[in-house]
Amino acid sequence: MSRELSYPKTTTNKVNRYNQRASYDALTIHRIVNATSVLHVSFVVPSDPKDPSSAPLPMILPMIGQMGSFDYPSSDETDALDCYLHGYVSSRIINLARGVEGIPLCVAATKVDGFVLSLTPNSHSYNYRSAILHGTATLVIDPAEKLYAMELITNSVIPDRWNHTRIPPDEAEMSSTSILKLKISSASAKVRIGPPMDEKKDSERPGLREKVWTGVVPVFEALGVPIPSLDNAVNEVPEYVGVYVEKRNKAEKMHADLVGRSTRL
Amino acid sequence: MSRELSYPKTTTNKVNRYNQRASYDALTIHRIVNATSVLHVSFVVPSDPKDPSSAPLPMILPMIGQMGSFDYPSSDETDALDCYLHGYVSSRIINLARGVEGIPLCVAATKVDGFVLSLTPNSHSYNYRSAILHGTATLVIDPAEKLYAMELITNSVIPDRWNHTRIPPDEAEMSSTSILKLKISSASAKVRIGPPMDEKKDSERPGLREKVWTGVVPVFEALGVPIPSLDNAVNEVPEYVGVYVEKRNKAEKMHADLVGRSTRL
Repeated sequence: MSRELSYPKTTTNKVNRYNQRASYDALTIHRIVNATSVLHVSFVVPSDPKDPSSAPLPMILPMIGQMGSFDYPSSDETDALDCYLHGYVSSRIINLARGVEGIPLCVAATKVDGFVLSLTPNSHSYNYRSAILHGTATLVIDPAEKLYAMELITNSVIPDRWNHTRIPPDEAEMSSTSILKLKISSASAKVRIGPPMDEKKDSERPGLREKVWTGVVPVFEALGVPIPSLDNAVNEVPEYVGVYVEKRNKAEKMHADLVGRSTRL
Repeated sequence: MSRELSYPKTTTNKVNRYNQRASYDALTIHRIVNATSVLHVSFVVPSDPKDPSSAPLPMILPMIGQMGSFDYPSSDETDALDCYLHGYVSSRIINLARGVEGIPLCVAATKVDGFVLSLTPNSHSYNYRSAILHGTATLVIDPAEKLYAMELITNSVIPDRWNHTRIPPDEAEMSSTSILKLKISSASAKVRIGPPMDEKKDSERPGLREKVWTGVVPVFEALGVPIPSLDNAVNEVPEYVGVYVEKRNKAEKMHADLVGRSTRL
């Protein structure tokens, strides 16, 4: 039983700085991806074959994504998973991802958990959780897998939302939806928790600690009171929405507070 | 007087989909970048010259950044500005950015403003503000410009924090801090506001509107109650911190609520 699945360290994903904050643990990485409302997906725009002086250029698209396994749908965050991505997929990406070989992507998931205020600007920091995935993405073609990914991604926004909407998607909806599946080749996470860390030269400087407030301002993603649309004909906010909003707010707030109070990593 | 400075449309930054949501207006773009706690910066890792089959690979780093102008420090968000970036800069980026030519970067700033829940998963969406910058970055070498950028970035986290800490940075701090300056060649923004937009086939489907709750769940970045560090020797949370936390929370919450209630874009 592999309870501690982890990604291999390679030259691509090896964390070189503050490496005591680094992790290659699959559970840590998958959790960060799944907790992040918007992922940033980067790919390379190849150089123009007609212009030998042109360089390959980086491009980023914001997308929604979740870790999942179509082959083993009962997998959890400790297992080997793929990253399913949904969003506006440029025709350029689609053409590159349509092939069997796929397109190399880098996916970043970042949650800011706090502003860390120390005695001197140089030691200021953030508490954060950051995951970076590297791999190759292909377009999901199989309708059953596409449906699996659409449900996974819809339910990542509001749990169980899928079953409370008009499903299944019709043919036009299925064909107009593009889902990318990232097979991960390497991945890493970086996490900072805890209070500011000042250098001795500052914390022992006479009078400085009495003048500069130091500590952590917790940061978290909050959900507001749901706003019914003008066309809405359901009297009350359903429980699966309302309860989730409350629960998520409590959990996000508590996390930011806890890591702000925690002892340093 | 150029009150409506905008970035040129090029093949790199032209928004092809939902282009009624697109903007090339400098003020819109600069505001999104400045309001985003963490930017995602992407660059290309060149292919391995020893391995002709290797492809250039995309890489993302999360960084903190702000728009600014060292040459015209009194500029505001309507003016021509550079993007100053701070964070862990890999030795690879530094080497590439050290040259006069610089390194091509793509910078993404994304704020999620709401989960938009419609009758069918296919029409689900986010309210969001997204800005994408393209350009070439160089390392800031001039100490005066570096100091300008460090103050700009520190104060983007908590306004006026810089003047309330031990400044100026000493020589070791100055030389250990890397700041990248992105000269923007093209940029674009995409903004979605408003309620869900359902297709007629669903909104006129008998009984469906009575079954599926539709509306917007506002999303915003919230700040918690500041947590003093164990070493802190200042009795109360200073006004410039406490008042900012309150004010920012109110503004972020109100923005998410307003765009959730606004008429469709």
